[in-house]
Amino acid sequence: MRHLLNPLDFSVEEIDDLLALARDIENNLPRYAHVCDGKKLATLFYEPSTRTRLSFEAAMMNLGGNVLGFASADSSSAAKGESVGDTIRMISCYADICAMRHPKEGSAFVAAQKAQIPVINAGDGGHQHPTQTLTDLMTIRSLKGRLDNLTIGLCGDLKFGRTVHSLISAMVRYPGVKFVLISPPELRIPDSIREDILEANHIPFEEVGNLDDALGSLDVLYMTRVQKERFFNEEDYIRLKDCYILTRRKMKLAKPDMYILHPLPRVNEIAVEVDEDPRAAYFKQAQYGVYVRMALIMTLLEVEKPC
Amino acid sequence: MRHLLNPLDFSVEEIDDLLALARDIENNLPRYAHVCDGKKLATLFYEPSTRTRLSFEAAMMNLGGNVLGFASADSSSAAKGESVGDTIRMISCYADICAMRHPKEGSAFVAAQKAQIPVINAGDGGHQHPTQTLTDLMTIRSLKGRLDNLTIGLCGDLKFGRTVHSLISAMVRYPGVKFVLISPPELRIPDSIREDILEANHIPFEEVGNLDDALGSLDVLYMTRVQKERFFNEEDYIRLKDCYILTRRKMKLAKPDMYILHPLPRVNEIAVEVDEDPRAAYFKQAQYGVYVRMALIMTLLEVEKPC
Amino acid sequence: MRHLLNPLDFSVEEIDDLLALARDIENNLPRYAHVCDGKKLATLFYEPSTRTRLSFEAAMMNLGGNVLGFASADSSSAAKGESVGDTIRMISCYADICAMRHPKEGSAFVAAQKAQIPVINAGDGGHQHPTQTLTDLMTIRSLKGRLDNLTIGLCGDLKFGRTVHSLISAMVRYPGVKFVLISPPELRIPDSIREDILEANHIPFEEVGNLDDALGSLDVLYMTRVQKERFFNEEDYIRLKDCYILTRRKMKLAKPDMYILHPLPRVNEIAVEVDEDPRAAYFKQAQYGVYVRMALIMTLLEVEKPC
Repeated sequence: MRHLLNPLDFSVEEIDDLLALARDIENNLPRYAHVCDGKKLATLFYEPSTRTRLSFEAAMMNLGGNVLGFASADSSSAAKGESVGDTIRMISCYADICAMRHPKEGSAFVAAQKAQIPVINAGDGGHQHPTQTLTDLMTIRSLKGRLDNLTIGLCGDLKFGRTVHSLISAMVRYPGVKFVLISPPELRIPDSIREDILEANHIPFEEVGNLDDALGSLDVLYMTRVQKERFFNEEDYIRLKDCYILTRRKMKLAKPDMYILHPLPRVNEIAVEVDEDPRAAYFKQAQYGVYVRMALIMTLLEVEKPC
Repeated sequence: MRHLLNPLDFSVEEIDDLLALARDIENNLPRYAHVCDGKKLATLFYEPSTRTRLSFEAAMMNLGGNVLGFASADSSSAAKGESVGDTIRMISCYADICAMRHPKEGSAFVAAQKAQIPVINAGDGGHQHPTQTLTDLMTIRSLKGRLDNLTIGLCGDLKFGRTVHSLISAMVRYPGVKFVLISPPELRIPDSIREDILEANHIPFEEVGNLDDALGSLDVLYMTRVQKERFFNEEDYIRLKDCYILTRRKMKLAKPDMYILHPLPRVNEIAVEVDEDPRAAYFKQAQYGVYVRMALIMTLLEVEKPC
Repeated sequence: MRHLLNPLDFSVEEIDDLLALARDIENNLPRYAHVCDGKKLATLFYEPSTRTRLSFEAAMMNLGGNVLGFASADSSSAAKGESVGDTIRMISCYADICAMRHPKEGSAFVAAQKAQIPVINAGDGGHQHPTQTLTDLMTIRSLKGRLDNLTIGLCGDLKFGRTVHSLISAMVRYPGVKFVLISPPELRIPDSIREDILEANHIPFEEVGNLDDALGSLDVLYMTRVQKERFFNEEDYIRLKDCYILTRRKMKLAKPDMYILHPLPRVNEIAVEVDEDPRAAYFKQAQYGVYVRMALIMTLLEVEKPC
């Protein structure tokens, strides 16, 4: 029995297979409508996340399966002091697979130790969120046709942005990938990523402070939110924030096939006017997220691809 | 692609068709058990409403479809500052149709601008609640056999009662309809309805302060709740409230085929003893609400009537 | 139409039939996958209980049915002042059967008076929780092969433990049953159970203060949580609590076929090390809970056993 706890749990080959399955699902959705008939997914969200939860639920329903679970810790046994290990033992009696989001780092790992069913980490604190990374990979591969030989810009809060760290860790496994890291000084990528992932793997990258200067060279731009509360003072925030807001004007500096990704939710870091740009891929990304989760559920449940 | 945002979005002919379909569903429920197989309804309730949410869910399940969503804003992305427009773009990737309740007027309209799927307004603040109006219309037509040539009493809080305003706006399109508006002075119908809807359409109506006096002339009595907090002072409330409580004694003054409707939930404005009266139609109304929502979902999804 | 409000609503013969059906379900699960196609279960949880709610939902889904409802009172019409009677009248329009948990004693009974569909009491305050009792009975019968001629130890909070009271009331109907009641003096079984159930039925029982002394004689040990807040003072709690914590060391005193049950959630009254003991049956119990609820739903809906 396998779990998905960390974006690197799957080898490059396994990710290739998963993305190929997701692509086949995208192209032949009705053929998958019953492959999980009679199966149940438990969505255990100790911390609310509408987007991720509904994406998993849509995925399971698209496969013909059922969904049960909880959307916040208030309505869970956690309030009565039950351990995650005990909860997952119980859930193993109720469902065939589960997706778990928990505010505490490592809790998906703890759950997997006790689970009798496959556990998907749907986010554990600031730690990991592997299905977001799989979604990002599928989006890049679908739109650019490849995962290698790409220059990827990552913009915004690179210090605390969990999705950014995971995406870098996943992409360094493909040849010819370069990164442009665009952030204010306060929110630069942490040393653990710069040294242990980028430098250790001899990956070319540059760190810049200005989005405008970087835009022209990128194949993919991955935007994230710059949160006011990350800044030491209001003046710094006001001075810096505009540099990290993507506008129609800025998009003129970008290549005609530079796609914009964003893990969502967005607040104001991409102007609404950009949504109409054909290079805006962040809503398409939400759609790919459903397909990749369908492929993941099938893979972990060892469900055969329909012929 | 069509939405249902306002009770008047459908013409009289379209409402006729919808109610005919709802009636056929009522009479042949099992034939509709699979017409929405593989379809998904998203219930987006930014404000809790058990009754409306479960009615939609029951409707979709009766058609063979699946349901996903959230029951309150706490467990939604709204807490992270996402706009309704962005949320609906995401939901369009997850579901085939959505029903949305939101405390802010006009939010269903905003959602519909961005949605790639049909949006049903399940209540936007004090503004509109069109599926309640469709339910009311189906109840009246089913029980009275017609929507024209009726004297309709509306009793209670006519000032703030959203369902009352919508029902009046919908009923003035049928010939021969008269209204008796029964309320304390503090809660009279607003000018916008009296002048722009009733007088502008030359609809006969009278405003009275006493339920007893009006009862004998009515074909339908639509009760609503009189909330204590609407009154200026406690004495007025105590003095007036009994006039607007329907009792078995009062029902003796009504015609033998005068049906009582209520949008529910009821607090004390209809005495429980009245529930046994065959003219009490408010629970039947809840049942009609499911059929009419089934018909609406089919209509907006352009699902064929089974043969 | 029947309801299940109290563990004693079913006769011994009816429980025999129900447990036989549950056992057949356990052994032939796929045969039951569609017996409730098109049926809907409403889960009305005015008080959160993940375990019980998800067990019901899994049960209904295993039978092919759908589930709708609410997980806490915040998202229910109760907040608008609706009575339980009115809510159940409405729910009767939406679902075929319902499971209701409510903090107030007797509320399931009130609901059943007004319901047009079978009501299952899923816990009403400290009062009754009959499906837990059915689960306990199925666990004992499955593991011990019988419900008669057993010595049953009940340990922990016997004063407030609803499940303990119900299990005693249910087990006294089988011949040859003896009880060993193990608790601190503060948490002894109430007189209502000691006198009206045990003594009135001439059931042999002893009350002891020490788990170690009792363990050797038991066929079944039913553990419950000893909550700190039940004690008059901290010193008493610290002095006493270790006597009521089951450890691997203590398990050496027990018979090789003495099964441990626990209604869960557990906090610390069973050491995690005991989970590996083959006599630990509390997670298996959660699995039996699903089968017995499947049997119950089928029985109340009068669904035929598949051939």
